[in-house]
Amino acid sequence: MSEPLRLGIAGLGTVGVGVVKIIRQKTALLTARTGRDVTISAVCARSRSKDRGVALTGYAWEDDPVRLATRDDVDVFVELMGGEDGPAKAATEAALNAGKDVITANKALLAHHGQALAELAEANGAALRFEAAVAGGIPVVKALTEGLAGNDVTRVMGVMNGTCNYILTRMEDAGLTYDEAFAEADGLGYLEADPNLDVGGIDAGHKLALLASIAFGTQVAFDAVDLQGIGSVTIEDIRTAADLGYKIKLLGVCQLTGRGLEQRMTPCLVPAISPLGQLTGGTNMVVLEGDHVGQIVLRGAGAGEGPTASAVMSDVIDLARGTRVSTFGVPAASLVPAKPAKSVTPAAYYLRLQLLDKPGALAKVAQVLGEAAISIDRMRQTAHDDAATAPVLIVTHRAAPADLEQALTGIAQLDVVEGTPVALRIEQP
Amino acid sequence: MSEPLRLGIAGLGTVGVGVVKIIRQKTALLTARTGRDVTISAVCARSRSKDRGVALTGYAWEDDPVRLATRDDVDVFVELMGGEDGPAKAATEAALNAGKDVITANKALLAHHGQALAELAEANGAALRFEAAVAGGIPVVKALTEGLAGNDVTRVMGVMNGTCNYILTRMEDAGLTYDEAFAEADGLGYLEADPNLDVGGIDAGHKLALLASIAFGTQVAFDAVDLQGIGSVTIEDIRTAADLGYKIKLLGVCQLTGRGLEQRMTPCLVPAISPLGQLTGGTNMVVLEGDHVGQIVLRGAGAGEGPTASAVMSDVIDLARGTRVSTFGVPAASLVPAKPAKSVTPAAYYLRLQLLDKPGALAKVAQVLGEAAISIDRMRQTAHDDAATAPVLIVTHRAAPADLEQALTGIAQLDVVEGTPVALRIEQP
Repeated sequence: MSEPLRLGIAGLGTVGVGVVKIIRQKTALLTARTGRDVTISAVCARSRSKDRGVALTGYAWEDDPVRLATRDDVDVFVELMGGEDGPAKAATEAALNAGKDVITANKALLAHHGQALAELAEANGAALRFEAAVAGGIPVVKALTEGLAGNDVTRVMGVMNGTCNYILTRMEDAGLTYDEAFAEADGLGYLEADPNLDVGGIDAGHKLALLASIAFGTQVAFDAVDLQGIGSVTIEDIRTAADLGYKIKLLGVCQLTGRGLEQRMTPCLVPAISPLGQLTGGTNMVVLEGDHVGQIVLRGAGAGEGPTASAVMSDVIDLARGTRVSTFGVPAASLVPAKPAKSVTPAAYYLRLQLLDKPGALAKVAQVLGEAAISIDRMRQTAHDDAATAPVLIVTHRAAPADLEQALTGIAQLDVVEGTPVALRIEQP
Repeated sequence: MSEPLRLGIAGLGTVGVGVVKIIRQKTALLTARTGRDVTISAVCARSRSKDRGVALTGYAWEDDPVRLATRDDVDVFVELMGGEDGPAKAATEAALNAGKDVITANKALLAHHGQALAELAEANGAALRFEAAVAGGIPVVKALTEGLAGNDVTRVMGVMNGTCNYILTRMEDAGLTYDEAFAEADGLGYLEADPNLDVGGIDAGHKLALLASIAFGTQVAFDAVDLQGIGSVTIEDIRTAADLGYKIKLLGVCQLTGRGLEQRMTPCLVPAISPLGQLTGGTNMVVLEGDHVGQIVLRGAGAGEGPTASAVMSDVIDLARGTRVSTFGVPAASLVPAKPAKSVTPAAYYLRLQLLDKPGALAKVAQVLGEAAISIDRMRQTAHDDAATAPVLIVTHRAAPADLEQALTGIAQLDVVEGTPVALRIEQP
């Protein structure tokens, strides 16, 4: 039998504790599956005295993650602290510089520094792996990097933030307002310390940027993701969408077109009968499309101790078995800079605007749409007694995003429209 | 750059041609992703002169797959001929004996000889891989063997024969009889040369047996799969199931209980709103459940040139990258003999029987069920004018399979029942 694979784990929050539990529980199973023992040499966290419900006996304690990352008895540095800079980045760099393999669940770190870290790993002959950074327990990084590696990927889509999907599901099922559903999710501890990471789409955007890099062989380009959170989605939007046969999801889409790399993480309408439309609660779903394999759909828990620890262990087991795959599927030096493209792929759109109750008001809106070459598929104006304005809901035929933007600008300037119109893409998965 | 990885491909049917196409089309991509060239040294098929729509120039031709498998210029033998014995087995053995890695899409071969072949591979330091043998393009072998390797798997379920799902979907959607839907599938070329491989559940049973081996570390035990085909499913069953909120699927289930390994491939009722229930047409779905990851659902094309070739290429790329994982996830010698268990996991059941129009007939059936400790959840007797018998449909509460069998035996012996009662499990995914 080979030498043991010795881990140093930094960060003993939910995921770190989950990893420690699996390694303590499944000693024999891990040895059978990898041909060697998987052990923990040392751990590191903010508080040494906190009771985490798992024994840490037999592991050295380090206060400094950089020291942990470079210990002689650590083969693999497991970074579960989080944060795009600071100690997570410093310790990851220290580990890689010392030639140690790194496993991280840190999507923010990789979304901002993925290219530099992948290059650093390769320069030192080290592996850098991140299955747990995307969609929790779903083995989607592996599916894309290895399972579908014989394909040119044509599109990747996904609902990759369980908190947002929980809020949207609760709005629909329980008729809650966005604020009520947000407060409920907060009370359940579903939100990040900075809630905008969730509801602003940033966390999901990080994940999308990582998948795009693998899918298209491009350098991670989180800054080029077209980000829009779910804060502007109303119950009325959700109900209208349902009437039309759609659900509203915070959906990530990336695809490579002749114009460049499109990356969007925005609230979208998807057909209610599609797998994405049927996804409720905190579950994640990723849709991978390849030129030979067609469409592959993966569904599972996107967060939580067990699922995320399971993903970390997938990387641990790969390294224990000697599997070596480039961080983003090809050598870092061969990743090409992404040429960010504003979305050019046409789609039907859902529009909501507040119209003043004046003669000819609707005609003015229709005229602006017509001038932008956008035709109307369906329209609905709801009567509101005693109100000076009425909501108007429009579903367009397929339109180019640029044309839609032109129309939105025109509509916003009309004297018969109050406030800013809401526009959501209708994606056909 | 490393030396090229040189393939010898035996079998140039749909899948073989798909593999050749990908390797010819994606030379640069494969080199970028694996760090070496992936080439074809030689091919072999029944007819040399047949036009397959793909150029075979530059490849040596062998008439004998055993010769192909042992050529000096072949590193990996790709077996795409099919058949559980004969040339496929002989050539696979020859390749392994020569220390060459083998990739196969042949579920029948592995379902019958998987243990012996895995042992032979390991004795010769060779890899034996079979992603394409299960669920076509869905990377489920990889997900289970690698992605979920940090879990004790608790259950694996799946719809893994697209032809059966196509027939059942057409019966429901178009109101076809089983025979009509079968004929339609046959006309479309969806059926194997021996249709019983499909509709008898054998092909899907092969796949289930392979997944069970990986999931539970047991030796492949296809003979222990409880097999039942879809031939006895009627439109009436499908319609009644739909009324009750269920769909009928040829569903594979395997789980390890205290009594042993349960493996079933039988028509089942599943909730219409579950992912399995929503699966239509020829698509496959596999549900993996682990103690930490929870439930992972994978969905995609289960057959066809592109998807199956994509799965073969996943194995090719793994080998080119130097990834070495035991055939069934652990060394073959450590796979334990499966202790086959008759299904003991209780379930609700759907029963259909033909009752003579006699006073007290239904009471007799109810009495037999009661004596077997099975209680009735719902019951429906349909009136049939001018008929001496009427169909009775019963949904039971959860019952032990042994109790149900006792009840079925009792019911079949009643003088008020005509023919053999049909019983389908209701699975809760």
